[in-house]
Amino acid sequence: MSEFNPKEQAHRRFNPLNGEWILVSPHRSKRPWQGQQEAPDRSQRPTYDPTCYLCPGNTRANGEVNPNYEGTFVFDNDFAALTPEVPTGSTDIGGLLRAEAESGVGRVICFSPRHDLTLPEMSVSDIRRVVDVWTDEYRTLGARPDINYVQIFENKGQVMGCSNPHPHGQIWAQRTVPGEPAKETTQQLAYFEKNGRSLLSDYLRIEGQEQQRIVFENAHWVVLVPYWAIWPFETLVVPRRHVQDITQLTDEEKDALAEAIQQLTIRYDNLFQTSFPYSAGLHQRPTDGQEHPEWHLHMHFYPPLLRSATVRKFMVGYELLANAQRDITAEYAAQRLREQSNVHYKQQPD
Amino acid sequence: MSEFNPKEQAHRRFNPLNGEWILVSPHRSKRPWQGQQEAPDRSQRPTYDPTCYLCPGNTRANGEVNPNYEGTFVFDNDFAALTPEVPTGSTDIGGLLRAEAESGVGRVICFSPRHDLTLPEMSVSDIRRVVDVWTDEYRTLGARPDINYVQIFENKGQVMGCSNPHPHGQIWAQRTVPGEPAKETTQQLAYFEKNGRSLLSDYLRIEGQEQQRIVFENAHWVVLVPYWAIWPFETLVVPRRHVQDITQLTDEEKDALAEAIQQLTIRYDNLFQTSFPYSAGLHQRPTDGQEHPEWHLHMHFYPPLLRSATVRKFMVGYELLANAQRDITAEYAAQRLREQSNVHYKQQPD
Ligand SMILES: O=P(O)(O)O[C@H]1O[C@H](CO)[C@@H](O)[C@H](O)[C@H]1O
Ligand SMILES: O=P(O)(O)O[C@H]1O[C@H](CO)[C@@H](O)[C@H](O)[C@H]1O
Repeated sequence: MSEFNPKEQAHRRFNPLNGEWILVSPHRSKRPWQGQQEAPDRSQRPTYDPTCYLCPGNTRANGEVNPNYEGTFVFDNDFAALTPEVPTGSTDIGGLLRAEAESGVGRVICFSPRHDLTLPEMSVSDIRRVVDVWTDEYRTLGARPDINYVQIFENKGQVMGCSNPHPHGQIWAQRTVPGEPAKETTQQLAYFEKNGRSLLSDYLRIEGQEQQRIVFENAHWVVLVPYWAIWPFETLVVPRRHVQDITQLTDEEKDALAEAIQQLTIRYDNLFQTSFPYSAGLHQRPTDGQEHPEWHLHMHFYPPLLRSATVRKFMVGYELLANAQRDITAEYAAQRLREQSNVHYKQQPD
Repeated sequence: MSEFNPKEQAHRRFNPLNGEWILVSPHRSKRPWQGQQEAPDRSQRPTYDPTCYLCPGNTRANGEVNPNYEGTFVFDNDFAALTPEVPTGSTDIGGLLRAEAESGVGRVICFSPRHDLTLPEMSVSDIRRVVDVWTDEYRTLGARPDINYVQIFENKGQVMGCSNPHPHGQIWAQRTVPGEPAKETTQQLAYFEKNGRSLLSDYLRIEGQEQQRIVFENAHWVVLVPYWAIWPFETLVVPRRHVQDITQLTDEEKDALAEAIQQLTIRYDNLFQTSFPYSAGLHQRPTDGQEHPEWHLHMHFYPPLLRSATVRKFMVGYELLANAQRDITAEYAAQRLREQSNVHYKQQPD
């Protein structure tokens, strides 16, 4: 038998951040695709849409009127999955039917008054305003005694369940720490206690040596396709400095984060010359009053497109029942993203 | 404050089978939907399609010709994610970049020669032939020393990544035990060691008393919406007898499984009068040579539709970054399925 070659052969990779394995099947990308085609988002939208419930001055479903905002705009989600006023209580039947009341807050953040923009089409200083809102919201919500975790995220594109193209994100903040950040807490804590350094600090050092999966870097942030990526063009955005949450970032680091987000999302859009769908969000320390020195702030991008603007990766039968699985290697994905222009395709001269 | 009311208020439920929590937000189903619409599958297909690579007598992508099969037909996947001949090997850089070679087998199972059918439109005796193929395949693959887990599944519908409507399922069998069955092994083992009975035996007893989540039952099987369901109309198909895998079922139990699958999928199709998409699959004991007395065979159905033939549930931002979440209660979903006719809508008199 020849030597194990992860570029060509099936293998498993370990995700040290959440403690789970993922199956990689590089040879499988040769398979022809005859299934569902997504509608690529090449829409030309107006700068203002009178029917959009997020545009400035418009009336929302519950009758409230949006202010004529000029930068960002934040409000309580009119259809929040979590609400603050829930009577506490729980159920336990034989240890098998267990439930407990959950409370929290849902917020919506408009990134810009312009209905036609998306993050990659916004200036670094305008993205910086979004970073500032995330910072304020994390601080304010996190200070509440009834909120122990704050999830900031964006669903972009219809294929990611986004029902309004106006550039916006959400926050779901709640009493308990949800599953994913709880796993990351466990993993980061074990690593920190063993090594005295954060898991992601050490990981960045290795990636700096390997130079195979880095997509973009500036003085304060590294954008890379993690070794254990699940989604085809999944990326991780990590600050070089080991901080636990966004409120600890300096002004310069926040500007650099805005630049990293802009540079990454421009490359995403350029890859298939389409408005690249994704779900993205920040992972930060729980706001449970503990220090959490093990935590290293980061941002995940989970984009579904695989081969083109119309062909996505499906996480279905095997993935749901057995294990996460991907068809291209992280190294190939990083190379594809790295070689994209840093100028958005809509702004490139013909 | 009033009393905790899980029918109306947000709460978390615990999944004892995999040890994870899920967020339930019943009040949220009132939210209007303006996002992506799925194309409902109301296609009238021919009984034979000359361009289908699964129809009898047709030539596949790799040049092989399908036999003129009359019942079921099984073959090695031409684009398998797992292949048997992989050189062993592994990588470990600082405990953070870890990989190991993985080997296995991919199989495709045609359920019927008829291109136009799906499981709910097949007779119980024809579905029984599919159950027999699953049994043979599990036995044969599981006996191989290089196969320690056998995942049998079906992706149905374009929205579940299925690229060919010809009724078929798949098997991915491999050297290691994947994540989901590994979690279920841990959970079932802990329960069995503590209580001396299988987790699902005790769970069935409670559900029999509660009578709130059962969709269909016969002498040998119970079909129910599990208390901890994630997908809107997710179901669990459980044998009353505590067996570890499909090869232990009696003839009568296999007939009854075929009936349970038919009765469930007919109700699925009737719910929104569409060919109901889902991913489904069997969970059975690993074929690692251990007894696994803790294991209780079962089948999961994960269907994505939420409100209609065109509006699905998206597992996106919050779900990917934080926690599984659903909008309707398991009890409501079970009631909706229970009240459906047991005659397929296409076969109902006008
Ligand atoms: O093997 P298929 O049917 O071509 O592919 C489908 O099922 C696989 C197993 O769940 C998934 O990995 C693919 O994303 C999906 O498109
Ligand atoms: O809140 P939205 O944007 O209406 O809804 C979207 O994001 C939520 C959070 O990820 C998901 O639960 C929904 O399925 C999705 O459609």
